[in-house]
Amino acid sequence: MKLKLYTLTLPKNILMIVTCVHVHVKSEAIDDFIEASLLNHRGSVQEPGNLRFDFVQQADDPARFMFYEAFESEEAAAAHKATGHYLQWRDAVKDMMAEPRYGVRYKIIEPKDRSEW
Amino acid sequence: MKLKLYTLTLPKNILMIVTCVHVHVKSEAIDDFIEASLLNHRGSVQEPGNLRFDFVQQADDPARFMFYEAFESEEAAAAHKATGHYLQWRDAVKDMMAEPRYGVRYKIIEPKDRSEW
Repeated sequence: MKLKLYTLTLPKNILMIVTCVHVHVKSEAIDDFIEASLLNHRGSVQEPGNLRFDFVQQADDPARFMFYEAFESEEAAAAHKATGHYLQWRDAVKDMMAEPRYGVRYKIIEPKDRSEW
Repeated sequence: MKLKLYTLTLPKNILMIVTCVHVHVKSEAIDDFIEASLLNHRGSVQEPGNLRFDFVQQADDPARFMFYEAFESEEAAAAHKATGHYLQWRDAVKDMMAEPRYGVRYKIIEPKDRSEW
């Protein structure tokens, strides 16, 4: 029973993580990139450990995009990279990059509660 | 009646916007910055036009923070900067910056529907 109580009182945010993935595409690839990324978005938000997978375009430069990816755990974020929709996206966009994309990992301060994601 | 039908069929995402505000604070100000920003977060998510106001800390550099701010319109984003909690935060953190903070504005591609924010 002690184990169960401990599990119940674990902070709910202890494992949640956010990654911002920044992508700069060739200007001629903008439409194709959006099309490929919509499929990845739709698949990603269906993953059981996904909390958000927002897909946004920089207001002052339509060739720059960001994915705001929140997962309930490191394991869920790693599982995303083994899904069919991610692998299909990775292959589809590999020749569209104007420069290598990069991700920035964040710890979540607020919202603390999983229900607010 | 025509006007009402038109209103109902307007795309729900037409005005929603995201701004990422990047903040680099002096290392000795980290704790005070978090404290001040928690107050701003709590007030901001109560604003009627606010959709998200996530407060995150860069995993590999605890002096770097980001606010992921989503509002239902430009007007709602502008109204945020006139609130008491924002003005209090702005004054509280003004001497904590290691370099000027900056915001990057994004158009939302997905999720398109306001209910998913």
